[in-house]
Amino acid sequence: MQVVILAGGVGGARMADGFARVMPPEDLVVIVNTGDDFEWHGLLVCPDFDTVLYTLAGIANPETGWGIPGDTWNALAMLERYGGETWFRVGDRDLATHVFRTFLWRQGVRLSEIALRLRQALGVAVALWPMSDQPVRTRVRTDEGWLAFQEYFVRRRCEPPVRGFAWEGLEHAQLSPEARAVLERADLVVIAPSNPYVSIGPILALPGVVPLLQERLVVAVSPILGGQALKGPAAKMMAELGEEPSARTVAQRYLPFLKGFVLDQVDAPLAPAIAALGIRSLVTDTVIGSPEARARLAREILDWVAAWDPPAGAGRL
Amino acid sequence: MQVVILAGGVGGARMADGFARVMPPEDLVVIVNTGDDFEWHGLLVCPDFDTVLYTLAGIANPETGWGIPGDTWNALAMLERYGGETWFRVGDRDLATHVFRTFLWRQGVRLSEIALRLRQALGVAVALWPMSDQPVRTRVRTDEGWLAFQEYFVRRRCEPPVRGFAWEGLEHAQLSPEARAVLERADLVVIAPSNPYVSIGPILALPGVVPLLQERLVVAVSPILGGQALKGPAAKMMAELGEEPSARTVAQRYLPFLKGFVLDQVDAPLAPAIAALGIRSLVTDTVIGSPEARARLAREILDWVAAWDPPAGAGRL
Repeated sequence: MQVVILAGGVGGARMADGFARVMPPEDLVVIVNTGDDFEWHGLLVCPDFDTVLYTLAGIANPETGWGIPGDTWNALAMLERYGGETWFRVGDRDLATHVFRTFLWRQGVRLSEIALRLRQALGVAVALWPMSDQPVRTRVRTDEGWLAFQEYFVRRRCEPPVRGFAWEGLEHAQLSPEARAVLERADLVVIAPSNPYVSIGPILALPGVVPLLQERLVVAVSPILGGQALKGPAAKMMAELGEEPSARTVAQRYLPFLKGFVLDQVDAPLAPAIAALGIRSLVTDTVIGSPEARARLAREILDWVAAWDPPAGAGRL
Repeated sequence: MQVVILAGGVGGARMADGFARVMPPEDLVVIVNTGDDFEWHGLLVCPDFDTVLYTLAGIANPETGWGIPGDTWNALAMLERYGGETWFRVGDRDLATHVFRTFLWRQGVRLSEIALRLRQALGVAVALWPMSDQPVRTRVRTDEGWLAFQEYFVRRRCEPPVRGFAWEGLEHAQLSPEARAVLERADLVVIAPSNPYVSIGPILALPGVVPLLQERLVVAVSPILGGQALKGPAAKMMAELGEEPSARTVAQRYLPFLKGFVLDQVDAPLAPAIAALGIRSLVTDTVIGSPEARARLAREILDWVAAWDPPAGAGRL
């Protein structure tokens, strides 16, 4: 059974890690958002990709959700002496990832090929693909004007009220060949508990992705629990965009292709509303901070889908 | 009195440091070789410039002559995991210098402007200018073929016998405007005890430099003591090129413009041969590892030149 995970940063990394713990690596593929990529001191930084990469390589910082534990900050301190901008925190080991990636990228190596080299070097057996080889940059429309994503997310700590989004470069971007190939043969697509606007949104915005998902078995894990996001600004964004900060809003967003939805137990009362949308639901514990919780949730999702009548993906499994 | 030092790496940095300790900073300018610059993982590295910069900023590693003391090596270790080449050792703080420089350089900022920003950020009051804003790359002809300078110097540890040199890019390079301006008004030009082939050679090879030096008062400090270089391959190169490994060979090389030559006391017997070339000589202790020794040698050179009859630079002082 070929499982494809659509992932953003921390939530995506944790969900991917869970599936990686309960499946043969060759049956699992992660497609990662690149909308939050940006250039920092001339280096191409891919925060979501690196979070997934480091998590699956076992070198992610469990406390911050980004960076490498025990990393040092000497390059950043020196950049600060030079007057460089340092609001985006890059540790010394992490910096090497950006230097290595940028070196290849400037030579014209595709982002997908770079991704392959990085994950193989770190011993990650699961395939990780950036959603696109072409640059797509999320821009956030706020009450203070348009902000580049990392300006909004890191520098401004998600404070300015959000009014909308745009994806710079989208008109020249397409799903990478690797991502398209795996999506076309996926038996199950799992949308990780990532921000539906800025983590999953860019993937869905690529041409042809929604039609592809409509032909596949797609389930999503809610990043919203009891009206709150465990991490990040998803719930705050919903409120600012005039939507209900709720798991239901997530399900509605994915309605054109969603077959199943995983809700946290605190949202059990929402199950009938999900059923009313024509979507199956699984109510369980979706807090997946620990490796054990991640693996347990992945196992539950696989078991749940396998028990569908008719079995999910029947004829394709 | 305006003093200009022509400098390579460690010898140049130490000599510049000596003058900086005994002169008002506004009267001193250092012009630094860029022939050993190279690109490393897509970053522009200027080893000689950085050695002078770090030395004058008081953050040079006194043991190695390069890098920053107490620096960490985490980015390099990570680059090694990615399969990147790591024979050129870059510490984490040092890496920031290359990242910052490259970021500006790729935006089209001149190397001289970058130099100004770097040294001002590190509080270096003495002006340091790269010899040229255009890339000049020293290539070393060896028994094993042509090698890029750092390949020869670091990777191959100066082992392959040297047969000659070439400067890639020289045909498109010129003395930087800043370096030209200070050389045109210098009262005294001091050629630091740097390698005459690969540290001073590229500066002299720039169009117009030798004629400029012929109009100025130029003294050189021998990098060769008792037939040996204190550091680096200068003496070994002389032997391989069929020249006598001797301070006299250095003086002969600078003969077209040299007015005075500073010899180590171990080479006192060579003084008559230097005089026979029509060059004044100062025999003293030229080992300048310590800050005190550097300052003492600089003071001695200034006093020596001031006592010339007629006084050096008379009419220009």
